[in-house]
Amino acid sequence: MRKIGIPEVEDIARGAALLGAGGGGDPYIGRLVAIGAIKECGPVTLLDPEEVPDDAFIVPFAMMGAPTVLCEKMVGGDEYKALFEIVANHTGKKVFATMPMEAGGLNSLFPVAAAARLGLPLIDCDSMGRAFPELQMATFTIGGISASPIALADEKGNTVIFDTITNKWSEELARAVTMSCGGSVAVTLYNVTGKQIKDYGVKGIVTRSQQLGAAMRNVKNVTDKTPEESFLEFSEGIKLFKGKIVDVLRETRGAFNFGKVVVEGIGECKGHSAFVEFQNENLSATVDGEIVATTPDLITLVDTETFNPVPTDALKYGKRVMIVGLKCFDMWRTPKGLELVGPRYFGIDTDYEPIETRSKGGWK
Amino acid sequence: MRKIGIPEVEDIARGAALLGAGGGGDPYIGRLVAIGAIKECGPVTLLDPEEVPDDAFIVPFAMMGAPTVLCEKMVGGDEYKALFEIVANHTGKKVFATMPMEAGGLNSLFPVAAAARLGLPLIDCDSMGRAFPELQMATFTIGGISASPIALADEKGNTVIFDTITNKWSEELARAVTMSCGGSVAVTLYNVTGKQIKDYGVKGIVTRSQQLGAAMRNVKNVTDKTPEESFLEFSEGIKLFKGKIVDVLRETRGAFNFGKVVVEGIGECKGHSAFVEFQNENLSATVDGEIVATTPDLITLVDTETFNPVPTDALKYGKRVMIVGLKCFDMWRTPKGLELVGPRYFGIDTDYEPIETRSKGGWK
Repeated sequence: MRKIGIPEVEDIARGAALLGAGGGGDPYIGRLVAIGAIKECGPVTLLDPEEVPDDAFIVPFAMMGAPTVLCEKMVGGDEYKALFEIVANHTGKKVFATMPMEAGGLNSLFPVAAAARLGLPLIDCDSMGRAFPELQMATFTIGGISASPIALADEKGNTVIFDTITNKWSEELARAVTMSCGGSVAVTLYNVTGKQIKDYGVKGIVTRSQQLGAAMRNVKNVTDKTPEESFLEFSEGIKLFKGKIVDVLRETRGAFNFGKVVVEGIGECKGHSAFVEFQNENLSATVDGEIVATTPDLITLVDTETFNPVPTDALKYGKRVMIVGLKCFDMWRTPKGLELVGPRYFGIDTDYEPIETRSKGGWK
Repeated sequence: MRKIGIPEVEDIARGAALLGAGGGGDPYIGRLVAIGAIKECGPVTLLDPEEVPDDAFIVPFAMMGAPTVLCEKMVGGDEYKALFEIVANHTGKKVFATMPMEAGGLNSLFPVAAAARLGLPLIDCDSMGRAFPELQMATFTIGGISASPIALADEKGNTVIFDTITNKWSEELARAVTMSCGGSVAVTLYNVTGKQIKDYGVKGIVTRSQQLGAAMRNVKNVTDKTPEESFLEFSEGIKLFKGKIVDVLRETRGAFNFGKVVVEGIGECKGHSAFVEFQNENLSATVDGEIVATTPDLITLVDTETFNPVPTDALKYGKRVMIVGLKCFDMWRTPKGLELVGPRYFGIDTDYEPIETRSKGGWK
């Protein structure tokens, strides 16, 4: 058990954006929302999953929608209370704590704001270990845990509860309402027990985000290696490519951001080219026509100077970026995991191969 | 208080389809569903609104979606129980009775099936006195009554509850889920008290449907006048046109059927032409380029031989039809009513004029 205050939030935002794999929303916004809530309501208690009783009732919180919309159309503040009251009323259970569903600039930080405003502890755990675009893409789904009842609230005061027959149907119906509400809404989903998060959660993700963020903040102060070497070392990242963004194709459709970013090599990559395709999150990276990384491994673009992650909604012509690959959470590499989030689910015509071998160790 | 058995259902189906104004679904299907439920569970008790205690909790039932879909994708039978349980659970109230929301071949009869299967009485009342395409189009909306909480169930087992800030938002969100569920779903909405139905309901609508249906059944046995004269007399209908359907334009969009039917004059209307535009229900009738009737007055096409109503989803080239106009429920002619369902709401560029004067008494 420890406290999350403003300095912790700053680091979590930076690190979570790296784990967001291009999605999970803009860390700038996530930071502001969490800091605002902590200033008003005080720091948040972070619990290790092991500190949570097996029968505790935990209600994860997330924002659903297209990241390009999320950064402009935010929660109004009343949604947290509305949602958690609906869930307690619908289930007849007392909420013990909240937790994030995914790691990302917004979706790691909004649960901090929810915890602060509701006076609930936050659990150091999520259900993706990164961000994914659809709500059935959770380790909890692998564990056979239902996403229902899902509660959904918009900033205008509309609320909805879904009880669906599969988690894919949850995605389908919640997405339809998200679109009608303007492209982003606040949701609670996958209400779980303490036992279930111990068995299927991605444990320690908030702490990992914070550690990554702190290391990123200090990357230029390391004296015995270049900032890039230092960044790749502490993040355990694989350098896939480095270049200048020369084209961004983006389409907001079905409350998702679909698109492709094309990068022209600079420095040691000069004369080569790469592209990354995404659906909210980066799905695959291709260098000189060869796929070097695919989902569920993490593909993140970072600024070549500051190493700040560049989410898919902030991609811009001319930006210098390094494309970095990170290993995904083990459970995603199982057959069940790959069925949910492997390349073929997203229409990428290749079998999954772990990034360590597919990238051949990365750009040398 | 009286009983609704199989003979009553036959007449209600026929008469309700006339009041459906082209919408409200196929009476053939409505009849089958209600008869099936009565055969299994026994006749239904029909209560006059005056027999209902002021504080009774009444949960209306309807099918939502495009009529073309509704006649193929039906309720499975489990939806009634699921929906009424959710509503009772969500509101903490005991359901006293159910009632239809609108008059129509399906939507007058499904509540009969719901009442039979749930062992609830049915109230002789609805909230439109005809059918309308969108759910905020209810006399209850005029009375300031919220459509929320709306419960929605599909035949697969997915359920949803909405609490929205306006009845227009209810329509918006429920429509989005209806589309995702395949174009039609079962809903309960506008949970009302006995007092509210007395103040704002369209009372006696089930009985009126049944009387119309019985008269239609006997139309050929009247000896002192032609069947057409007899039909127009007992239905209080205005004959707007008579002809052969020469074109049907239909588009299923947003879980609605939009379209236009073109009719070429026969008999006394030979040499003239007319068309009717619809959104699930018929919205306006135009004869020789002049509008002769608009919503909220009822425009119904009936077969020239049998006088059976032809709903918009059953329009076919070559069919001989009479276009009949009927006066709408008084409340729709008030400024509040016309704001909800007047011609301008549907994008028809004309002010409302009561059918009695607009049609100049109909075709002579």
